Amino acid sequence: MTELTESVSRMIREFEKLPGLGKKSAERIAYYLLKVDKHDALALADSIRAVKENVRYCKHCFNLAEEELCEICKDPRRNQTLLCVVEQPQDLIMLEQTGRYEGLYHVLLGRLAPLEKITPDQLTIAALVKRVQSGTFSEIVMGTNPTVEGDSTAYYIISQLESLPNKPTITRLARGITTGSDLQFANKEMLADALSERQEMR
Amino acid sequence: MTELTESVSRMIREFEKLPGLGKKSAERIAYYLLKVDKHDALALADSIRAVKENVRYCKHCFNLAEEELCEICKDPRRNQTLLCVVEQPQDLIMLEQTGRYEGLYHVLLGRLAPLEKITPDQLTIAALVKRVQSGTFSEIVMGTNPTVEGDSTAYYIISQLESLPNKPTITRLARGITTGSDLQFANKEMLADALSERQEMR
Repeated sequence: MTELTESVSRMIREFEKLPGLGKKSAERIAYYLLKVDKHDALALADSIRAVKENVRYCKHCFNLAEEELCEICKDPRRNQTLLCVVEQPQDLIMLEQTGRYEGLYHVLLGRLAPLEKITPDQLTIAALVKRVQSGTFSEIVMGTNPTVEGDSTAYYIISQLESLPNKPTITRLARGITTGSDLQFANKEMLADALSERQEMR
Repeated sequence: MTELTESVSRMIREFEKLPGLGKKSAERIAYYLLKVDKHDALALADSIRAVKENVRYCKHCFNLAEEELCEICKDPRRNQTLLCVVEQPQDLIMLEQTGRYEGLYHVLLGRLAPLEKITPDQLTIAALVKRVQSGTFSEIVMGTNPTVEGDSTAYYIISQLESLPNKPTITRLARGITTGSDLQFANKEMLADALSERQEMR
């Protein structure tokens, strides 16, 4: 794109860095932004700046927050004895949307992945152990992803909590067949979990 | 997304307004921007601001420019007797990329579309007529899109140039390009052929 002005080329290069955007989509966005009101384009620019200036991780649970503590940690109505460990803030959001969880969270900000050189010290595991040690949690729910890496991360965390004098009960999200799915499309692991964790019908 | 912070929700809403981005892509971009260095995220924000602050339309031809005149109008080596009329700056870019055109341009910033209430006064046609009237062009190449609307726009422009005492030869891009398609998606070879076979309009 030799004949674009320098500013436009630079903007296209910046958009191309975003996940899911190629050269053509970045160009289409650039032409759109050239056309819209200055006010509307700057609203996008300012929203990005605001996120990088205002958003940080909650001091307690590492959820996204605009103050020292996130909205969940600040809420006294949450069950202070229940803690759910998740990999990412977006996992927390998914669980919140069910409306079925009333406890606190701990966000690991990743999962153990030795091949990618992601080791325990790059996650918030030390902070979690400290939190459990000095807290009054009666149950920890492992909400890591049901993958090899998510499971290894959960088992590593359990090994770290093992020796605590006040070690809480540790549970994990139920594994089984997905509501609304079709048995013939289920994978073996899913069905094996569903069988071994079969629930009594009342 | 009730549990996102206000800044993050606002940023996602702004990204959702961009063409081709839905809720899921906007969220994926948001998580990416939350994760990257502040410096990298602000580079995107600043590139948008720079475009809206620096980029304007060339005073002569309405191409994108960062000064009063665009790079092409400022270039004395361009053939000052040849003028190519295009709908959008991106069409000009496509023609430049063929390396086969050495004249000047005039960007209409759209095409006539009565159904969308796009009338001649919303395009840069009056400026074009004035430019041809006071200029020394020997040939005008109609480079509007090979569509019903592009053709109507070309014929409307011809009708406006008809009565000029110094009316230049008027040609159009050869129909090596496929009728009904869009210039910005054409390939270079097709456009190069269309340029070298341009036909006189009578």
